[in-house]
Amino acid sequence: MKRYKKENPLSYTLGAALTFELLKHHKESVKAVYLHPQFSEGQAKDELIALCKKERINICESEKAFNILSPKENCFVIGEFEKFDAPLQKEGNHVVLVNPSNAGNLGTILRSCLGFGYKDIAIIRPAVDIFDPKTVRASMGALFGVRFAYFDTFEEYAKLVGERAFYPFMLQTDTALHNCTFKKPHALIFGNESSGLPASFLEIGTPVIIKHSQEIDSLNLPIAVSVALYEASKQ
Amino acid sequence: MKRYKKENPLSYTLGAALTFELLKHHKESVKAVYLHPQFSEGQAKDELIALCKKERINICESEKAFNILSPKENCFVIGEFEKFDAPLQKEGNHVVLVNPSNAGNLGTILRSCLGFGYKDIAIIRPAVDIFDPKTVRASMGALFGVRFAYFDTFEEYAKLVGERAFYPFMLQTDTALHNCTFKKPHALIFGNESSGLPASFLEIGTPVIIKHSQEIDSLNLPIAVSVALYEASKQ
Repeated sequence: MKRYKKENPLSYTLGAALTFELLKHHKESVKAVYLHPQFSEGQAKDELIALCKKERINICESEKAFNILSPKENCFVIGEFEKFDAPLQKEGNHVVLVNPSNAGNLGTILRSCLGFGYKDIAIIRPAVDIFDPKTVRASMGALFGVRFAYFDTFEEYAKLVGERAFYPFMLQTDTALHNCTFKKPHALIFGNESSGLPASFLEIGTPVIIKHSQEIDSLNLPIAVSVALYEASKQ
Repeated sequence: MKRYKKENPLSYTLGAALTFELLKHHKESVKAVYLHPQFSEGQAKDELIALCKKERINICESEKAFNILSPKENCFVIGEFEKFDAPLQKEGNHVVLVNPSNAGNLGTILRSCLGFGYKDIAIIRPAVDIFDPKTVRASMGALFGVRFAYFDTFEEYAKLVGERAFYPFMLQTDTALHNCTFKKPHALIFGNESSGLPASFLEIGTPVIIKHSQEIDSLNLPIAVSVALYEASKQ
């Protein structure tokens, strides 16, 4: 076992609850479950071992995996799994993330997407790795419930999905989120944490702004995405 | 200089942009500004030095502060400041955080509060330290624009602020956020990241739920707070 790298075909769930989510949704992808020698006896351990035995998943009790993958954390279970495909459904509503750069943010966004019923996520490169263990962890298992695809350009995504209403979220517009009526199917589009969407997105669909006071420069990206999903999903 | 501790009378802004925010809003509290020897020459450096000279703030060029406070990060400016009081205004709308435990989350919440016009934050102990450099950093400077107070119990807070409408955010209620009309002045009340609000809050004011799919257990705390502030502030 080595430190996680984007190029690895395997990724990891750090923590017992997350590993249960993995086993629930993607048991066919699980290669092994590692237990820390200090993982306390009890119901969670018994259930985990029973589940792995039933699914014929290898269980290893060893400290080594924890030293490599989670050296500083209070983590007693690690799930090792093969990265999987979960292709976008073209028909439904989408969330499009253009150049997201922070692993934790992407995980938090996935959790909100699943919570507000947006199960299809398109990610435009360059972008953070959706299988980064930090993303997996921040998603609290939501990664295992959504569908996703990476694209090299927004145009490539748009060509694939065909006709739909595009709503890029930007500061350079007057259409406020709370006044916007969302057509369906739609794609809600968000830019990078620092730089937002390029101005070229002003020409695409209906740009929308989440109004906030002048006292902050911008909302945090997962916050902006979640507020938009809340408003669009309640309509 | 030592590692930050809650008991210290001083805290720190890690990063140039954050230190500029500190100087803009609380220059009277600033004790020193540390510059990393590798902080590149240029406009930001010139402005920072000019500002410190004008305000007679001590500037130290030394690596030591960075090794202690920010050993792994790409940080070239640190502001050292005395913790300050910014007492709650009793009259306006409030956000009440009951037992928040994560420093980064608290910072992100402060940023959203300032963004949606909620400038008064009550925090019920036990709770994370609002001056933790991680909170300061995640707030992106919003800490310097809000008012706040800590209380030992919710009752102590309620007694101080007198008559107002209370909206505790909980899962055990049917009043959905998007159907709720918020009276003013109000307090929007949120529980701990893991455990939420105790059931006793069902007896206080109007409990409200942010509806989400069964596929997630809960929304991330800063997300829940921000969605609630968005809805209540647009009314």
